[in-house]
Amino acid sequence: MKSFSEEEIQSADKIFRLNLINSVSGYKSANLIGTKGEHGENLAIFSSVVHLGANPALLGFIMRPASVPRNTLTNMKETKSFTINSVSEEIIKKAHYTSANFELGVSEFSACKLTPEYLGDCHSPFVQESKLKMAMKLEQIIDIELNDTMLVIGSIENIYVDEVAVTDNGQLDLNAIDTVAISGLNRYHKVEEIGNFPYARVSELPIFE
Amino acid sequence: MKSFSEEEIQSADKIFRLNLINSVSGYKSANLIGTKGEHGENLAIFSSVVHLGANPALLGFIMRPASVPRNTLTNMKETKSFTINSVSEEIIKKAHYTSANFELGVSEFSACKLTPEYLGDCHSPFVQESKLKMAMKLEQIIDIELNDTMLVIGSIENIYVDEVAVTDNGQLDLNAIDTVAISGLNRYHKVEEIGNFPYARVSELPIFE
Repeated sequence: MKSFSEEEIQSADKIFRLNLINSVSGYKSANLIGTKGEHGENLAIFSSVVHLGANPALLGFIMRPASVPRNTLTNMKETKSFTINSVSEEIIKKAHYTSANFELGVSEFSACKLTPEYLGDCHSPFVQESKLKMAMKLEQIIDIELNDTMLVIGSIENIYVDEVAVTDNGQLDLNAIDTVAISGLNRYHKVEEIGNFPYARVSELPIFE
Repeated sequence: MKSFSEEEIQSADKIFRLNLINSVSGYKSANLIGTKGEHGENLAIFSSVVHLGANPALLGFIMRPASVPRNTLTNMKETKSFTINSVSEEIIKKAHYTSANFELGVSEFSACKLTPEYLGDCHSPFVQESKLKMAMKLEQIIDIELNDTMLVIGSIENIYVDEVAVTDNGQLDLNAIDTVAISGLNRYHKVEEIGNFPYARVSELPIFE
């Protein structure tokens, strides 16, 4: 086992530290967040979208205001609206480059050749190429003072998903729509199911070897 | 495309809704959180561990106080200490069943045949079978009043990782240590890298077809 102490982490080269600490939490979700504001449409990739609760249906993600993408935050605050769009294998490269620091007024949709799409009465653009997308209403932004980041919380107003992914009990087969996982800052992965276990009950505990 | 409106989600069967809303965020990290308190050692699986920042090195995860695992929260508050341990292919079944609602005083390590291990001066037990593990110091618990959950924030005091996963630039090769991803409530996946892109710069934008 290799070990890294708090002191070694702090004194490491900045890029090494960024890569290491972005890797240790394990595989991460890959989602594109779409917004629209006075400077037009914006799109940015996030690897921190996390489940907060099913009833009400809430998702959250971490945002660092000091860095890109600044438009996304401004637009969300103005319109209380954003979209979350899954990243599938076919679009990983385009999705990755939405993280470049484009000038104000440049749409990442155009720059990265992804197609804006409007569905229902959602103010914000969806990604047409995405096979699982959600209209979100901004509910709350919680400041995390420890490191000047924010937990952005939205409620799900609508889910649009390719029918091949929908199973009888509500579980989505993310594999069927080629959803990818991220590790670190820039590694993309395809995924294969190896286990599907029932809800864990003490009375139904298997015998482990 | 199949669509689910807010009303359809709210009026859906509870299990269907739980499965669906736990699926929509995409692939999730799989980690075991270890603690020790007055009732002994505890271990619980979490799929919400998320990167908060690299300097200081902070991770967070979502906890619902109303449900299991209650001991984990009590122990963390008492001792300000916990461990985060990655889940690899070999231990997915054991890891999954740590989520059963065991009685107070029952150690999930014993019940699920995982081995507690003590490293350095960390108060909390690590999972010996895990190939990437961290000693964490509890920094803050932020209440999320929208649905009575909490964002638990810890700082990384020590990282222990199998050397095969460490690369020159600090990125961890999570594949090399068989780390799995979770989707929904109970699906486990192995993962294969399909892309590794550089830091995205506007001046180095590829030509997309």
